[in-house]
Amino acid sequence: MATIAPSRRVRRTPFSDGVEAAGVKGYTVYNHMLLPTVFRSVEEDYHHLKSAVQVWDVAVERQVELRGPDAGRLMQMLTPRDLRGMLPGMCYYVPLVDGTGGMLNDPVALMLSDDRYWLSIADSDLLLWVKGLAHALYLDVIVDEPDVSPLAIQGPKADELAARVFGDGVKDLRFFRYGYFEFQGHMMLVARSGYSKQGGFEIYVEGTEKGMPLWNALMEAGRDLDVYAGCPNLIERVEGGLLSYGNDMTRDNTPHECGLGRFCSTQTAIGCVGRDALLRVAKEGPVKQIRALSIEGNLPPCDRLWKVTAKDKVIGQVTSAAKSPDFGTNVAIGMVRMTHWDDGTQVQVETQDGPRMATVHEEFWI
Amino acid sequence: MATIAPSRRVRRTPFSDGVEAAGVKGYTVYNHMLLPTVFRSVEEDYHHLKSAVQVWDVAVERQVELRGPDAGRLMQMLTPRDLRGMLPGMCYYVPLVDGTGGMLNDPVALMLSDDRYWLSIADSDLLLWVKGLAHALYLDVIVDEPDVSPLAIQGPKADELAARVFGDGVKDLRFFRYGYFEFQGHMMLVARSGYSKQGGFEIYVEGTEKGMPLWNALMEAGRDLDVYAGCPNLIERVEGGLLSYGNDMTRDNTPHECGLGRFCSTQTAIGCVGRDALLRVAKEGPVKQIRALSIEGNLPPCDRLWKVTAKDKVIGQVTSAAKSPDFGTNVAIGMVRMTHWDDGTQVQVETQDGPRMATVHEEFWI
Repeated sequence: MATIAPSRRVRRTPFSDGVEAAGVKGYTVYNHMLLPTVFRSVEEDYHHLKSAVQVWDVAVERQVELRGPDAGRLMQMLTPRDLRGMLPGMCYYVPLVDGTGGMLNDPVALMLSDDRYWLSIADSDLLLWVKGLAHALYLDVIVDEPDVSPLAIQGPKADELAARVFGDGVKDLRFFRYGYFEFQGHMMLVARSGYSKQGGFEIYVEGTEKGMPLWNALMEAGRDLDVYAGCPNLIERVEGGLLSYGNDMTRDNTPHECGLGRFCSTQTAIGCVGRDALLRVAKEGPVKQIRALSIEGNLPPCDRLWKVTAKDKVIGQVTSAAKSPDFGTNVAIGMVRMTHWDDGTQVQVETQDGPRMATVHEEFWI
Repeated sequence: MATIAPSRRVRRTPFSDGVEAAGVKGYTVYNHMLLPTVFRSVEEDYHHLKSAVQVWDVAVERQVELRGPDAGRLMQMLTPRDLRGMLPGMCYYVPLVDGTGGMLNDPVALMLSDDRYWLSIADSDLLLWVKGLAHALYLDVIVDEPDVSPLAIQGPKADELAARVFGDGVKDLRFFRYGYFEFQGHMMLVARSGYSKQGGFEIYVEGTEKGMPLWNALMEAGRDLDVYAGCPNLIERVEGGLLSYGNDMTRDNTPHECGLGRFCSTQTAIGCVGRDALLRVAKEGPVKQIRALSIEGNLPPCDRLWKVTAKDKVIGQVTSAAKSPDFGTNVAIGMVRMTHWDDGTQVQVETQDGPRMATVHEEFWI
């Protein structure tokens, strides 16, 4: 395996010192920043995530801030999800699309106030798209990347750990809601959210100064909970069907193909870029869609698109895969054409190490 | 050192098989794609680059294509460089800026025809900025990322190697001009350009099919020239003052601060976004600017911004640094305030391993 080369361009985070001290073994780069991928081993991290509690450096979830009188209007331009019901204190998962309805990012939007939003983004320079629109349309809005770095607490013991540091009130937060909680004299935005199915929180840490103190406080407070450094876990996210932008969906895909139709209310999302294209798709339905697949045999790392075939015809692709200890099979995320997307359909997956037998499933494992 | 995690999101290139076979030891991620950073050792690669010839997988220089009646108008909107003199066959290095004159990218633009351009980009999703402008302004232009992957031939023997594969005609190409040359029945766009000071070419390979055949043909043809796989070399680029977007310049900087004022003809670049801001800067001059610095002592990797101080006051930053065998010092790229940017000024550089004495230089080493 090749190592990752150090440079300023691949940014460190306010928590990098803690990540290194915990013995990070692998990184990826996400939004021009270091994202840990493994600490002890992907499998050991997986079991630990499902049984204890982890602290994740997810500073790579950079924020795009929209601020000003036109912030709300611009927000609705970005997504086919109807935002009229959104209020301060809420988080919305929002598919963002271009003029043809192709996915540009799938952030969590936070409404901070009537004229101020954060988009907590996946891996693309969404800032440039939003700035381009705002500039060309002379919108009365400031678009920028504030110095905010999320830190996640994930796992079944996340509530207990968060309460020890932020107080019991944090336990009352509902899913995809946020509140402000005190840490060492600073009010911090804490949301019940995160990129796992194990539950937990994301703390939006402003600036760098409080980064390591918070990291250390969580590690200290959770010692008897078996807290450890962690990161989004490939096995767990594939089991749970958590999509990854750039892996499982790209600009080539509409939200409907990605199984995100339930987040689109295109008819009433007045002003949304790509509305015409998506109304068409919503009417006819997509001809391919995200599916879970179980794959037989030994798999190489899924570092490229794997074609899915049936009778030598390409009918889809697999874009994420991992061996699941809990489910005793290779779990995978792919996109399959409607001719073969029914539950139980037998297909073949073409890996770099040769073909493998596979089965299409309607539901993910969790 | 941590390894880099495999995933489809961090894309392989048409030349990845060749890169792996040559024993790549380090990668970075650039435009969501793998970019090799070291093969034998950074120092061995450096000596070899300066004495022989290397083949570089620079597929990460993705293309943003502008095509249609408004392509020329949109191109001029993107840059303060006056493009009126540009003709098909020419490459222009173009600083691209936002509304305040902040750098968004510094690609090489290729004019393919009157209504078709490629921007061969540095590390940011420039596509999203260009798409945002084109969409909001209803411009009559298609903006997309075509499947084009540059392969570079760099080093003093680059002309000889290129001629053996593309014919002697390639030697007549002038700097920053391109032409079409045949390889195995395909016409390929070959430009005299590249991210080193050693001279050479970049071949814009369309699709994936001809990637490895071209790689292998170059390796075969150059055997007696000591050809080897290479990559942009940190030491050589810092010696030569080749800036790296994301390292040495960001959205915070104007082209003038980056020493790119000579590429700005803002007065006549009618329609350029950020024109007002840049006219102001051009008039007053920047208060800080890119400088070469030599640094004493042993250095850790420059994986973060190093503050530059004088009498305990911050007067600049260093963003790239490497130990230069040929010049017997640590060479570095930084940005220094005008109070301290004169040649020979003594300053201090604050690395993660402590302070180091340094000297500001007006010129780079090559």
